[in-house]
Amino acid sequence: MAVTLRDVARLAGVSIKTASNVVNGYSFVKPENRRRVEEALAATGYRPNIGARNLRRGRTGFIALVLPELGIPYFGELAGLVITAGREQGWNVLIEQTQASRDGERAVLAALGPHLIDAAVISPEALHASDFADLDPGVPLVMIGEHSVDVRIDHVAIDNVLAARTAVGHLVEIGRRRIAAIGEHPYRGTAALRLAGYREALTAAGLPQPPELVRPALHYHRQNGASAMADLLDLPEPPDAVFCFNDLLAVGALRTIAERGLRVPQDIAVVGFDNTEEGAYSRPSLTSVAPDKLAIARTAVDLARRRIEADGEFEPEDIQTPFTLAIRESTAG
Amino acid sequence: MAVTLRDVARLAGVSIKTASNVVNGYSFVKPENRRRVEEALAATGYRPNIGARNLRRGRTGFIALVLPELGIPYFGELAGLVITAGREQGWNVLIEQTQASRDGERAVLAALGPHLIDAAVISPEALHASDFADLDPGVPLVMIGEHSVDVRIDHVAIDNVLAARTAVGHLVEIGRRRIAAIGEHPYRGTAALRLAGYREALTAAGLPQPPELVRPALHYHRQNGASAMADLLDLPEPPDAVFCFNDLLAVGALRTIAERGLRVPQDIAVVGFDNTEEGAYSRPSLTSVAPDKLAIARTAVDLARRRIEADGEFEPEDIQTPFTLAIRESTAG
Repeated sequence: MAVTLRDVARLAGVSIKTASNVVNGYSFVKPENRRRVEEALAATGYRPNIGARNLRRGRTGFIALVLPELGIPYFGELAGLVITAGREQGWNVLIEQTQASRDGERAVLAALGPHLIDAAVISPEALHASDFADLDPGVPLVMIGEHSVDVRIDHVAIDNVLAARTAVGHLVEIGRRRIAAIGEHPYRGTAALRLAGYREALTAAGLPQPPELVRPALHYHRQNGASAMADLLDLPEPPDAVFCFNDLLAVGALRTIAERGLRVPQDIAVVGFDNTEEGAYSRPSLTSVAPDKLAIARTAVDLARRRIEADGEFEPEDIQTPFTLAIRESTAG
Repeated sequence: MAVTLRDVARLAGVSIKTASNVVNGYSFVKPENRRRVEEALAATGYRPNIGARNLRRGRTGFIALVLPELGIPYFGELAGLVITAGREQGWNVLIEQTQASRDGERAVLAALGPHLIDAAVISPEALHASDFADLDPGVPLVMIGEHSVDVRIDHVAIDNVLAARTAVGHLVEIGRRRIAAIGEHPYRGTAALRLAGYREALTAAGLPQPPELVRPALHYHRQNGASAMADLLDLPEPPDAVFCFNDLLAVGALRTIAERGLRVPQDIAVVGFDNTEEGAYSRPSLTSVAPDKLAIARTAVDLARRRIEADGEFEPEDIQTPFTLAIRESTAG
């Protein structure tokens, strides 16, 4: 016979309401009661009838996760964490890829709606503020990661300017004076904020900022980092350090530096961004800004849940999640 | 005013039926007509009303993609391709992660059904044949990748035994005589087939197969490759080559070899499996078995579509997609 929530509550010695609150992922349950309910859930193997529950609540049971590309390790790792966080709260997660283009992002926003999803977590790269007004999908939206558009939407991210300043400050501390940046981009919110942090760190250190040391990257893939690094090494005065706006660009840069017979960090120190496991295993291992990805995933899903439950007007929140700088061989020879 | 399929057909100079066949992803349209319809679709910006179409057909508009972990680069890349292939045929793709455990895979199978999805593409790692009978989700299933269970289900994969034999044969050809393998696993279909190919290649070359040269890996992550390689290097007679059952294991092995001050490929040659971009950029760059991932994604989605349309009895197919061996610095110094 199927286990009911009543059985779970009886075994845990709590009210059905308390057991229901735990199952539904509410956060205000006393830790002791939560523990007892979780043990009873595990012991009975209770599984909520999610389909019936969603129908009762007028929900679809889906949230969308909109991101540039699953093949980019940072987004693959983040998507895995959002799927797990969504599942913990009873949601299936529908993943939409935009290829980081404004057209792709507009097309996805236009296709979403309350017939399909209860909320969307989006990592926009190229959307303009007007796109959100044009294409409002009519469900709560939570933005994750960077953006530079001025829209009043819930937002979860690290402080990108501070993170970039910390990364470049570390290069200054180890004695570098010609510090380059790879990843400038006309539309990416990421790029503008990280470039600002880079400039702030150089200004604070009284270092020159020759424009040829800031290199664009059309995509944030390994090959773009490799070719931008080649351009930097071809300069009459090449840099003695480079700050890359993600780990893939840095991995590409490491490859070019090695092919030219130069040493990292002795000749050129390299810092990445995202702290992917690939960077931790590269040779040399990569110093990188390490956002707390689990905190981003959980905070975004929790914020989406709160908005759905509030079901009305609210003040958008801007939640900052923590980051660290993981220092490895590429700056600490 | 909204563009209709009639407008598209008129502009392309074809019948509405032909235009409909192109939009619905059928493959039997003449190339010339297909080209004209595709141009007309682009020119008019026509978008099918997928919701209405699904309702008419009694479909949900979703297919599930069930895989171990999005954070593993091979699966992240493959998932991106399946999402694109699904979208081309009008499906949203729902991704389910199983963490490669039998419990995780059983739980996902049990949760799926025709209320949620039209079909599922699954990459099983640990399921037993009986699980498919117990938990039949009642929709077409297509298996991708390796499996060693004896079930009559549509299946798309490369020939793993031949691929492993090719990889190890390459190590024999470059003169290696003590060839190790990393990735043995009691439940993974992957492991059994690749190990069989490894043994076949050694037997064909008349080489000894000391049991200590075959190392298990509980997970196929970088750290497992690193620790298995350390065990191999601690042997009284270490190997002169190693065949790793995926690229992540190989990246971990490369790291350990470098930390011990040994050279690749001079002291130890290394071959991986999956041909991830990470391997192509590692130092040294990694020789790897290269499955045609795009062919796997497209073939699996196309097979799912055919089964849904056939809507009845059929003979399960076993479709082999091509692979190559990408030879790079880790075996060709």
